[in-house]
Amino acid sequence: MKILVVNAGSSSLKYQLFDMDTEKVIVKGGCERIGIRGSKLTHKTEKGETELEQDMPNHKVAMQLVLQALVHPEYGVIGSMSEIDAVGHRVLHSGGDFDRSVLLTDEVLAICKKNAELGPLHMPANILGIEACREVMPDTPMALVFDTAFHATMPPHAYMYAIDYDDYKNYKIRRYGFHGTSHKYVSQEAIKYLGKPANETKIITCHLGGGSSVSAVLGGKCADTSMGFTPLAGVPMGTRSGDIDPAVLEYLAAKKNYSVLDCVNYLNKQCGVAGVSGVSSDFRDLTKAAAEGNERAQLALDMFAYGVKKYIGAYVAAMNGLDCLVFTAGIGENTWQVRKMICENMDVFGIRIDEKKNGMKNDGALHDITGEGSKVRVLVIPTNEELVIARETKELLV
Amino acid sequence: MKILVVNAGSSSLKYQLFDMDTEKVIVKGGCERIGIRGSKLTHKTEKGETELEQDMPNHKVAMQLVLQALVHPEYGVIGSMSEIDAVGHRVLHSGGDFDRSVLLTDEVLAICKKNAELGPLHMPANILGIEACREVMPDTPMALVFDTAFHATMPPHAYMYAIDYDDYKNYKIRRYGFHGTSHKYVSQEAIKYLGKPANETKIITCHLGGGSSVSAVLGGKCADTSMGFTPLAGVPMGTRSGDIDPAVLEYLAAKKNYSVLDCVNYLNKQCGVAGVSGVSSDFRDLTKAAAEGNERAQLALDMFAYGVKKYIGAYVAAMNGLDCLVFTAGIGENTWQVRKMICENMDVFGIRIDEKKNGMKNDGALHDITGEGSKVRVLVIPTNEELVIARETKELLV
Repeated sequence: MKILVVNAGSSSLKYQLFDMDTEKVIVKGGCERIGIRGSKLTHKTEKGETELEQDMPNHKVAMQLVLQALVHPEYGVIGSMSEIDAVGHRVLHSGGDFDRSVLLTDEVLAICKKNAELGPLHMPANILGIEACREVMPDTPMALVFDTAFHATMPPHAYMYAIDYDDYKNYKIRRYGFHGTSHKYVSQEAIKYLGKPANETKIITCHLGGGSSVSAVLGGKCADTSMGFTPLAGVPMGTRSGDIDPAVLEYLAAKKNYSVLDCVNYLNKQCGVAGVSGVSSDFRDLTKAAAEGNERAQLALDMFAYGVKKYIGAYVAAMNGLDCLVFTAGIGENTWQVRKMICENMDVFGIRIDEKKNGMKNDGALHDITGEGSKVRVLVIPTNEELVIARETKELLV
Repeated sequence: MKILVVNAGSSSLKYQLFDMDTEKVIVKGGCERIGIRGSKLTHKTEKGETELEQDMPNHKVAMQLVLQALVHPEYGVIGSMSEIDAVGHRVLHSGGDFDRSVLLTDEVLAICKKNAELGPLHMPANILGIEACREVMPDTPMALVFDTAFHATMPPHAYMYAIDYDDYKNYKIRRYGFHGTSHKYVSQEAIKYLGKPANETKIITCHLGGGSSVSAVLGGKCADTSMGFTPLAGVPMGTRSGDIDPAVLEYLAAKKNYSVLDCVNYLNKQCGVAGVSGVSSDFRDLTKAAAEGNERAQLALDMFAYGVKKYIGAYVAAMNGLDCLVFTAGIGENTWQVRKMICENMDVFGIRIDEKKNGMKNDGALHDITGEGSKVRVLVIPTNEELVIARETKELLV
């Protein structure tokens, strides 16, 4: 069985084709600059990489080019489109209407369109990708895999905000959480590694990358997560502020003559560790600058690690315990300094890491970096959101 | 030595006169509806309560009436104004310019005026109170005791927000924290009770009232606190939302046609447990309604307790340990149900309370409600912000 995974952004369309018997990636690629001059398709197989510069005025044309590349006599990987058993689409937001992945129907698509306003940066693009794909492969089953779905198991006291109840009901203002496929994947991998029944586990997953979120996974199910109504909330991120007193917006608006929208754009794009450090949103640059004595880079790292620590503590309280702490995504997998800072002085929870193991290179495999005497297992697990999408799509076909 | 403590609001002026040799309150009272038709002074001594209905067009007139009441032949408590050795004023915001209480000078007052915009709801009234008092008692020393000062010891990684560094510098946008005199008082009382050197203690103080905040007090000094730039942030409160994804404001503004100011007013006044429950902001009403089966009242209580739990966990992480958990203020002192909910399922931190002791009536004394086998001492300590203000004022006179 072959499944194509599609992740459509506003001007991009990434794809991976999986052989589901082996769960191996046959090809991975992407279209860039869709609708912008200079669009390009990159297509990478075992045999090598192909680049095609070609006009892509819209997502439909991009999707057609992807299919052409997949069946291309030279660099293609399948004989015909009919070999693709299904397509799995990454979709940002379920709007609380879906608590799991679903097969695409007209009704499902209509609900997604209704929920587009909840994710104005991503949802319209996700929908464009779905529609383009449907047009060029009208007979192939398609699944939608939501970034929020793993968090659908949060109890009301965790997902509700303390606002007027009618506004929650009417406008669906609540915590949704994001990076769900990643938190799901690494928590499931951790459960396998622990070798315990899922319902006996208390896991905290730290997805630390350009965007970062921390989740409490109790008995294999999400109990709480740090991102909120949007991916702005939670720990400080590359350019996002994370949690901040909402009254700051009023002050900021007055001082900088900002609209509400300006304020939120500012908090999304000009803040985070980049704003604090003045150096970069990239943690490789930050750790380098900090090591060279840049105090604001050090401060940004301290704030980031402290933010994650606080969420770990909060979720230990939420679950009344902790068996396993998982690091994943760009920073979580690669930046040993940050893992070290987060795990330092956490004896109270029984967290200790092995400095040497923590210093390992990311080779794409699970690494157990637990230290001697640690009561909590500390793991680095490379995330694989595309594989989760492919798996969920496969499950829906059966 | 006698010290008068003054707490001026926009249309109110509360006062207490302390005999500092015994730390007893000689008289406590307040003016209501200053500048509004129907103003009234209430004056309460050991002998009884006096009410005076009299026009108070401004804070100066109110202050004059207070002094007349204090020296009144019938219900007065002192022979002449000169018996008042000093006045201690409660002031909301130090703006980061004062890390402790200070004696009033022209320069200090000028700094307070500059910082008024940081606390637009309280600071102008606090300043009115100071000026009125100064006019009618020009020769009496006065001290300003700031609600934020106890939090001045927070490290940068705790008080900084992940925003543009220049905006932090230019606009002083950072976490300040509030209820400082209360957190200071109860943490100091807890340290006395524990009988350990202050620098060996790790205490979390929960000031739970109409406004609520949780503080981490490490070695007797504030290490972090849940309120932020304003008293809106942190746990859900009576009518305040507490922490919420700041991007909610953009959505809310669009849906309800709100300005930024409208959004912040909404989050301050129409949210919290009152907004969620639709019942009340008063926890006596909430616990009653919940006991009678009102699901939204129960949800509001669950959210409140969960919010406090998460901060406790976060601060256990921040301090890498916990010796003592303190409850204070209206809810913390009186609502056993909430204390129970917060302390339930917190074995991971070694927190256990004794159900019977927790059910005790608040009689104004410290109560140790620690349960058997608890590693953490759990205390209920009635707060006394006025006494702290009087003590700090006294210290400044020496």
